[in-house]
Amino acid sequence: MIGKTRLERLFNPRSVAVVGASANPGKLGFHVMKSLVKGGYRGKIIPINPEAREIMGHPVCGSLSQCGEDLDLVVVVVPAAQVPGVFAECARRKTGGIALITAGFREIEDPAGGELHERLLDIIEGQGIPVIGPNTYGFVNLRADLNASFTPEFSALKKGSLALVAQSGGISHLLGFLAGEAKAGLSKIIGLGNRLNVDFPEVLEYLMEDGDSSVLIFYLEGLEDPRRLIEAGRRHRGRKPVLVYKAGKARVGNEASRSHTGTLAGRGEIYRGAFRQGGLFEIDDLTLLLDTARALALCPEPAGAGVAILTAQAGLGIVAADICEAEGLEVAAFTAATSETINGLLPPVAFRGNPVDMGPAWYDVPRLEGILKAAMEDENVHLILLLIVFASANAEVLAGLEGMLGRWRQKKPLLCCLSAPQDLWDEEINRLEEAGAIVNYPTPERAARAAAQLWRYKSLLGRPIGPV
Amino acid sequence: MIGKTRLERLFNPRSVAVVGASANPGKLGFHVMKSLVKGGYRGKIIPINPEAREIMGHPVCGSLSQCGEDLDLVVVVVPAAQVPGVFAECARRKTGGIALITAGFREIEDPAGGELHERLLDIIEGQGIPVIGPNTYGFVNLRADLNASFTPEFSALKKGSLALVAQSGGISHLLGFLAGEAKAGLSKIIGLGNRLNVDFPEVLEYLMEDGDSSVLIFYLEGLEDPRRLIEAGRRHRGRKPVLVYKAGKARVGNEASRSHTGTLAGRGEIYRGAFRQGGLFEIDDLTLLLDTARALALCPEPAGAGVAILTAQAGLGIVAADICEAEGLEVAAFTAATSETINGLLPPVAFRGNPVDMGPAWYDVPRLEGILKAAMEDENVHLILLLIVFASANAEVLAGLEGMLGRWRQKKPLLCCLSAPQDLWDEEINRLEEAGAIVNYPTPERAARAAAQLWRYKSLLGRPIGPV
Repeated sequence: MIGKTRLERLFNPRSVAVVGASANPGKLGFHVMKSLVKGGYRGKIIPINPEAREIMGHPVCGSLSQCGEDLDLVVVVVPAAQVPGVFAECARRKTGGIALITAGFREIEDPAGGELHERLLDIIEGQGIPVIGPNTYGFVNLRADLNASFTPEFSALKKGSLALVAQSGGISHLLGFLAGEAKAGLSKIIGLGNRLNVDFPEVLEYLMEDGDSSVLIFYLEGLEDPRRLIEAGRRHRGRKPVLVYKAGKARVGNEASRSHTGTLAGRGEIYRGAFRQGGLFEIDDLTLLLDTARALALCPEPAGAGVAILTAQAGLGIVAADICEAEGLEVAAFTAATSETINGLLPPVAFRGNPVDMGPAWYDVPRLEGILKAAMEDENVHLILLLIVFASANAEVLAGLEGMLGRWRQKKPLLCCLSAPQDLWDEEINRLEEAGAIVNYPTPERAARAAAQLWRYKSLLGRPIGPV
Repeated sequence: MIGKTRLERLFNPRSVAVVGASANPGKLGFHVMKSLVKGGYRGKIIPINPEAREIMGHPVCGSLSQCGEDLDLVVVVVPAAQVPGVFAECARRKTGGIALITAGFREIEDPAGGELHERLLDIIEGQGIPVIGPNTYGFVNLRADLNASFTPEFSALKKGSLALVAQSGGISHLLGFLAGEAKAGLSKIIGLGNRLNVDFPEVLEYLMEDGDSSVLIFYLEGLEDPRRLIEAGRRHRGRKPVLVYKAGKARVGNEASRSHTGTLAGRGEIYRGAFRQGGLFEIDDLTLLLDTARALALCPEPAGAGVAILTAQAGLGIVAADICEAEGLEVAAFTAATSETINGLLPPVAFRGNPVDMGPAWYDVPRLEGILKAAMEDENVHLILLLIVFASANAEVLAGLEGMLGRWRQKKPLLCCLSAPQDLWDEEINRLEEAGAIVNYPTPERAARAAAQLWRYKSLLGRPIGPV
């Protein structure tokens, strides 16, 4: 595929030129330079600016045409009127790719914006040069320490396997910051902007082959040709989860979206069925989007809808059971063997059934382990929710849990709500997630919903494929 | 009301005795003592323990009967079998109130638990001694620095006006920790447990008169007599919002709930209509529960359903507009005057309408202020959403926003999603919330849902009251 080849060079360049690099913090060209330099990029950085001589320790080139280098990536932050000249030079030099941050194209009211868009396309026609943007913050390849965006803060995000691709810069940033807070690891963050010639289908094809990315998150507002995305989805159906948030469903949102991206957004219903056909997993809440992505990245696939709810405090189990039932999971009936094992480990005050109110048993790691193992081995159980809220008298439980879960791998999805004040358990939880032992959520409801999403995704893939 | 008087002394005691106080961190009596001592309680603390002489710097009394003090509050953490003796002594001494942390009563399988429950009732019959519990963590009066619970960490929570009352200790802790993370201020945290003789209706009556509490959050699983709560709600309808989360709606959750609290939980539908009649605002998601409580505590009442969406990045506005429409708000049509003012402040690239995509105008505080003021003064606008995601080139916007909002009070609800990485804006947001200028949420969806809840609560109160 052309997509695989040309995006590979764009996302993993050996050299990056910044047209419009600046030493002035009031300019985006300053922030792009800072992102590259402070982000730890190990390739060659070439700031381009007709006036400066050195920016952040890097010698400046007066113009792109004066650069001797074979340029893999050119980041462009000069005003729109100067962009055609830059593109012509990129075309002449057979640049590997362009990240066009500049705005003022198809998204503006002035028809000159649309004309400029077409002109850029003409200039690079037939050259095979991929362009991220215009009207974007750029992109980040976290796993390569390449931050080609105007947001240096992206470099501090945790590396992982979630690939975030969005039409909106604001949503990219929001999801990136939310991922940072949830300690969710990202592989790439890509702002497609006005999608001059790189659109979701090509990125989907590329990310399917990208060894760094295991779950794809697409935020889109409107597409010129949704069919292409659906077809790309169908070609790779079941290989990696593709989560899609389609904004602009309501009347007003849709109107705003149309204007924002210069495309017809279309009503939500038109997209919904198509996504399903393409094996794309539609999610319409940003929190759930990230919660689902984390579950898919960190958990094995559930073989069924049976859930065991193991809870240290009864209330959490009741809340989780409500959600599980409402969201299509089955609160599993344990086998006789499981019930016997669990009852043997529980004190008389505990509830005998599922949810399992572990009562004081959660203070005792061997008993906790026995209960968890029994649930994990029960043939009627396909997912497990483990819910524990901090108690001062048992603050050490996480250390025990860590030792225990370190000894055996997650055979079935183990979704947790381990909640403590003042980040007291953060380190242990982080290590457990990094070891692939659990995935943690701030409320039992979010853990239960994420569990339901795992099963829903599996069910989506199980559907027969009809005509697009 | 008896409730007002007797709970006042319980929640604001001049002295607290801890029956079962301990210097051993493996005992709950240790954690209760730590809560009182480290929590900064200014009254007299009397640990009671037949063996120790001093605990955490406080001289120990060998037994309750040996205490010379007039005791306002007795916290009990001795085993269930010893509790009747303690209660008899409390009755003899006309103690102000009891927090009975001990478990092993009506919630256990053994019928002896239920019998013990009845026996306790008999012992204090006619004495008017209020009992929080049994089977609880206790309670916290944050505003009085009184932490009468086994969770010292509660003392670190922010003081504010949300009163949290729950039947479940786990949910109390979870909501407390979530409030801590959201920097939501709490007045009281009360764990009603098995509700020996203090139940939701009496606490509702008390909190209505409590100057420290402005919004009441009730988490309940099942009630013996829901009608009493509904009647109490009706008596105080509209005075302070009472948010109710009723768990145990699903089949399994309901079953677990019945066992947990030893009461019939009843199907959700039975409760739903009754809550509405009582002016109690039912919410069935823990995240939304806290989000709504914060909005009600920090925002004025909206006069209508018209919302203005002001956004720094178009994507956020589109997402918010989708939610507003779905949740019953109206994305307001601005008056001609507002449109003219806003268009005068916006660059040509921005979308002309509502949502207002402020584009680069949000980099300029006077223009941002002009837009916000125009929306605030528009007669069609009753609530405002302000959505801004951090940009490195405009990291200082919050300082400007703070100065601006400090100059004029919130006349209409101003709900924000101000999102930045690595807690960069936390301090400014916190100060703005404390000044009552805004309420902030982590996603535009949560801000929009909270806005819709403000209007929904107002609409709930507007309904005519029918028969219970």
